[in-house]
Amino acid sequence: MSTKRKIIRTLRCKNKKNIGVLAALISTMSSLGADIGDIKTVKFGELFNFRDITILIDDEDHLNTIVQAVRKLQNVELEAVIDDVLETHRGGKIEIHSRAEVKSIEDLRKIYTPGVASVCNLIFQEPKNAQIYTSIGKNVALITNGSRVLGLGNIGAVAAMPVMEGKAALFKQFTGYNMIPILLNTRDVETFISTVETIAPTFSAIQLEDISAPHCFTIEERLKKSLPIPVMHDDQHGTAVVVLAALISTCKIMNHDLKKLKVGQIGLGAAGQAMSSLIMKYSGNTVLGTDLGETAVQRFESQGGVSSSLNAIMNECDVVMATTGRAGLIKPSMIKKGSIIFSLSNPEPEITIEDAMKAGAAFASDGSRVNNLLGYPGIFKGALEAKAFTINQEMLIAAAEALVSVTPEGDVIPDVLDQDVHTTVAKWVMKAAIHTKVTQDFNS
Amino acid sequence: MSTKRKIIRTLRCKNKKNIGVLAALISTMSSLGADIGDIKTVKFGELFNFRDITILIDDEDHLNTIVQAVRKLQNVELEAVIDDVLETHRGGKIEIHSRAEVKSIEDLRKIYTPGVASVCNLIFQEPKNAQIYTSIGKNVALITNGSRVLGLGNIGAVAAMPVMEGKAALFKQFTGYNMIPILLNTRDVETFISTVETIAPTFSAIQLEDISAPHCFTIEERLKKSLPIPVMHDDQHGTAVVVLAALISTCKIMNHDLKKLKVGQIGLGAAGQAMSSLIMKYSGNTVLGTDLGETAVQRFESQGGVSSSLNAIMNECDVVMATTGRAGLIKPSMIKKGSIIFSLSNPEPEITIEDAMKAGAAFASDGSRVNNLLGYPGIFKGALEAKAFTINQEMLIAAAEALVSVTPEGDVIPDVLDQDVHTTVAKWVMKAAIHTKVTQDFNS
Repeated sequence: MSTKRKIIRTLRCKNKKNIGVLAALISTMSSLGADIGDIKTVKFGELFNFRDITILIDDEDHLNTIVQAVRKLQNVELEAVIDDVLETHRGGKIEIHSRAEVKSIEDLRKIYTPGVASVCNLIFQEPKNAQIYTSIGKNVALITNGSRVLGLGNIGAVAAMPVMEGKAALFKQFTGYNMIPILLNTRDVETFISTVETIAPTFSAIQLEDISAPHCFTIEERLKKSLPIPVMHDDQHGTAVVVLAALISTCKIMNHDLKKLKVGQIGLGAAGQAMSSLIMKYSGNTVLGTDLGETAVQRFESQGGVSSSLNAIMNECDVVMATTGRAGLIKPSMIKKGSIIFSLSNPEPEITIEDAMKAGAAFASDGSRVNNLLGYPGIFKGALEAKAFTINQEMLIAAAEALVSVTPEGDVIPDVLDQDVHTTVAKWVMKAAIHTKVTQDFNS
Repeated sequence: MSTKRKIIRTLRCKNKKNIGVLAALISTMSSLGADIGDIKTVKFGELFNFRDITILIDDEDHLNTIVQAVRKLQNVELEAVIDDVLETHRGGKIEIHSRAEVKSIEDLRKIYTPGVASVCNLIFQEPKNAQIYTSIGKNVALITNGSRVLGLGNIGAVAAMPVMEGKAALFKQFTGYNMIPILLNTRDVETFISTVETIAPTFSAIQLEDISAPHCFTIEERLKKSLPIPVMHDDQHGTAVVVLAALISTCKIMNHDLKKLKVGQIGLGAAGQAMSSLIMKYSGNTVLGTDLGETAVQRFESQGGVSSSLNAIMNECDVVMATTGRAGLIKPSMIKKGSIIFSLSNPEPEITIEDAMKAGAAFASDGSRVNNLLGYPGIFKGALEAKAFTINQEMLIAAAEALVSVTPEGDVIPDVLDQDVHTTVAKWVMKAAIHTKVTQDFNS
């Protein structure tokens, strides 16, 4: 959910080989608010070095300010400003590969006619053979209608494709399995549901993505009932898993036990609803919640939550979670001394970390720490490997606890690029699936 | 359409190193009707050689006969019978790959948040950018409900997956583009159509596959109208292209001009209908046709065909195409001297090549020559590269003529494993799309 609308550019600089030139360049950019990323040496010359310096900045204006400052530096020539984000996305980020190269007519006879007929027959006689002899057992559909994308909102399914491909590319890297983006050209709940039901045999699990509330609730509930495979809306449950993990780790740092703390949830949209449900399941205690929408509050109560108010939650709760999308909603004066504040709205939180800490919070976090990439890869890998027919709350809690188990002492979340993180989540999720008997073996 | 229900096995044999042992082994298997494929040497030893000999046989009984005969041979020990067709299909034949490996947080910021947001915005502002910055421009959907698969019939979508994956794997190998199998769990025409319409934004073309008649006609017609991208039912038009190419090449061999010959079509199902339509478009002449079904005949007439009878076609036509699914329908006595007979039903033709030639045909072919793999890869590659919004008859005829252009002198069809074949078809199809102004550039 780290979605601050920043842009990335690479500045190719020709630096005179004097001592201090690179340092001055970096210092200039840093002092103007650029976040310095990788620095790659393109060429070491006799008189000059060429370096590509990647920076994260707020917007085009911010970029211009920095470019002008760099141009004023002595001993530095700015050769080019490269938008390598666009270059990275050119041609798309995923592709189909063949696992069976055909070099001879003999190969062709095996993977295509006549050989393939015997494989089709094996599956016709016993559909479970499709798990062995096709890719279906490794395929997760990633389905969106683009009605609520990141911090971008209702941009439609096609404009959401770069996000979908990013999730699919990372899923492959983290798990080895296939995530296949499917873009739906509909805002109608019934059409959405019947389309997913109709294409479902292609996949062993369905990840719903970037769908606006309240449709996302209906769609997920109905598909979970009608399909014999796991269905999960990542913006709800993937987020909830990562937040729960961060919360458990935070409590560990502070020598608290989350199960003994009073938790409040401000904002009961897709993420808020799922977070509070998962925390209640984990702790065995109820959660106080509030939302401006009546149906949201009713849904929350139906899941065991207790309706409250913004002020009551701020006054009473040891842990406050906020997912309202309303920047600045929480005033410093409302912060209870010693409380834990997760102010998660993007791009601007309900209260900044600095303000919350200044006002007396014991710990504060914003949405930039909560990275959904920590959740869904391991959750789906675990579900696939267990041949689970659903993803239940026990599996989600196992995923959160797995994340805690691989979080370095004193940190709130683990490193998303650590392959071991995803492998551990998958293992714990698989065990929970087997333990709660939601695998196909128990089903048949 | 080469779908004789044969099976493939590999016999691992330990042969004494005497002269003539391998020859005797091959001769034994050949004489019992095994079609000998690759022979691989697994190990050269001091006293023995180990060889894997792959054979194509009719069925398990046929295999047993051969195994028993091999066991009786002196100097040969049969070590194992390996079903390497199944091994080839294990785990599926296609997978998703990431084109953007993420090694650092910097990479992650480019392919995922926050970098991805700028790419989404570019597409939101101008949807055509999706062709540049996502995989959509390279994606062809391969859609089936499994209602009529190969020679296997109505086995359902999941059992059809090995065929779909084979087509997708070969599409990748021949064109470099992505073919994504989508299995539809429906026999209802309206659900089929609305599902494809809803998922269509994911793709730049739709290949319909293995759908029974008459649903295949309605589904293709409706989707061609409603979608802004090419839609093609391969069993109709892919087959028609390959048959037309084979027919033109046959006429060349015989010093005939197809445009001056009288053509008859026996059987007006999906393939028969498309073949006769394409031949009429190519030659400018009508075709005589017959079918037991009244609606099939009406459809044929509405496309310019002339209703006739089996006997009249056999008596009057210089070229007879048969696609009835009825083995032995054409008796030798019905063959007109000097005629060209394409008896294409699988697994058994209306008349065998031998019987047709004996009865006086100038040329005879069966379905084993007509390989759909020659058509769809180049047709869709050409359509994608032209950014075509449809596949029209001119593009199909261009594909057939391209196939003729790469067919070696004296042959009827080119080598499907020759990459140049598919590249040539794609180029000719692209030119025809541009020439007939069905590319997006003309549309916008």
